Amino acid sequence: MSGWVKVAGLGPGAEAMVTDQVRAALAAATDVIGYIPYVARVAPREGLVLHPSDNRVELDRARHAIDLAAEGRRAVIVSSGDPGVFAMASALFEALEHRPDPGAFDIEILPGITAMLAAAARLGAPLGHDFCAINLSDNLKPWDLIERRLRLAAEGGFAMAFYNPRAASRPGRFERVLDILREGCGPNRLISFARAVTTPDEHLLTVTLGEARAEMADMRTMVIVGTPDARRVGRFVYSPRSA
Amino acid sequence: MSGWVKVAGLGPGAEAMVTDQVRAALAAATDVIGYIPYVARVAPREGLVLHPSDNRVELDRARHAIDLAAEGRRAVIVSSGDPGVFAMASALFEALEHRPDPGAFDIEILPGITAMLAAAARLGAPLGHDFCAINLSDNLKPWDLIERRLRLAAEGGFAMAFYNPRAASRPGRFERVLDILREGCGPNRLISFARAVTTPDEHLLTVTLGEARAEMADMRTMVIVGTPDARRVGRFVYSPRSA
Repeated sequence: MSGWVKVAGLGPGAEAMVTDQVRAALAAATDVIGYIPYVARVAPREGLVLHPSDNRVELDRARHAIDLAAEGRRAVIVSSGDPGVFAMASALFEALEHRPDPGAFDIEILPGITAMLAAAARLGAPLGHDFCAINLSDNLKPWDLIERRLRLAAEGGFAMAFYNPRAASRPGRFERVLDILREGCGPNRLISFARAVTTPDEHLLTVTLGEARAEMADMRTMVIVGTPDARRVGRFVYSPRSA
Repeated sequence: MSGWVKVAGLGPGAEAMVTDQVRAALAAATDVIGYIPYVARVAPREGLVLHPSDNRVELDRARHAIDLAAEGRRAVIVSSGDPGVFAMASALFEALEHRPDPGAFDIEILPGITAMLAAAARLGAPLGHDFCAINLSDNLKPWDLIERRLRLAAEGGFAMAFYNPRAASRPGRFERVLDILREGCGPNRLISFARAVTTPDEHLLTVTLGEARAEMADMRTMVIVGTPDARRVGRFVYSPRSA
């Protein structure tokens, strides 16, 4: 049997949001590779080797999966959310690019429910119009580029979803993000903080940009800004389809 | 038993990409409401009333579901993909906003695998960096706004995912989109056309913007533009995580 690598999205946390396709891949795998808390979501079983690793070793993980597949093993790299959104799919292709002859094996990316869409669903429909997804971590891109994209997104009246709001290497940077947003969108625009959605720790908060504080976000929080027309309906917030 | 409305995402087409949460909602429903081809994906059963409707009656559908829930029925509005992305979730909140006393019932949005992420997974990882999702239909917004957002997205070096590429009310508009992209991103940027992903009709095509033609997209196609650094690896295309 020839080997394969599948990069699978486990969704935001709730087991009921894992797709059958991902479950089938995990059932067929010989090896599961990923960040410690994601591998911990996979039930151990006879014949399955779990390879949990620490954060920020994405390329090592990808190379490891490629090595295993080249030996004929069936490796699943697990991501939370969707592997194609600020997760392991790009790292896999980057690793492949640097291996002139990675060997003969299959590759498949298995989508999952990404954090911003799980958060949006719990909040209502704040991404119900054109939107941007921006990773606020400056680990792999210059901070200036993040600031520029924030300004362009505000100028375009896009809704916005922010991953890794507190990952910036220097403290005070998420405060800076909020300043740029207030300047570009005004103080009355709605912003939502959705922490640990679909888990027992879930916490939802919607305020105006004028009321927003950096402390409202941590590493488990998705931050979502509505369009200029976004508004509340009861406990929900939504961006209308028309603009 | 009190009524409810759930807006459920059926994913891009493959049954293996429907979540258990959505399946459970369909199993508990008394009524399923939605666009004809989406309702056709729900298996008929004793005690379940199917209410298929034609396109472009989103608000009527939402009002109907609210009426049913107010009578104590359990209504699922089905969307393809994710209900929060250019689909029925916003329409539901819009309908609720116009009903001062909609009655006492629960509301829940159940996320699904949205078309752009299913398409990205089949293509590789073209949305592996900051990206914008833009609905190219000018049914509910002025065409000028679409052009403006395209230019800003290009200026920011975002990857881009386009829904409804051929829905513009006048012919030639997707050709105009390609012209704006060529102007903003240059002729060598990669663009992918992913038709009917995860179904038997799936067709994938990646070309440069210089080679792109409007006829490469139809109503079942997701169009995805990579970042300035996007490139091919074998049969895949990916946008690197760094920029």
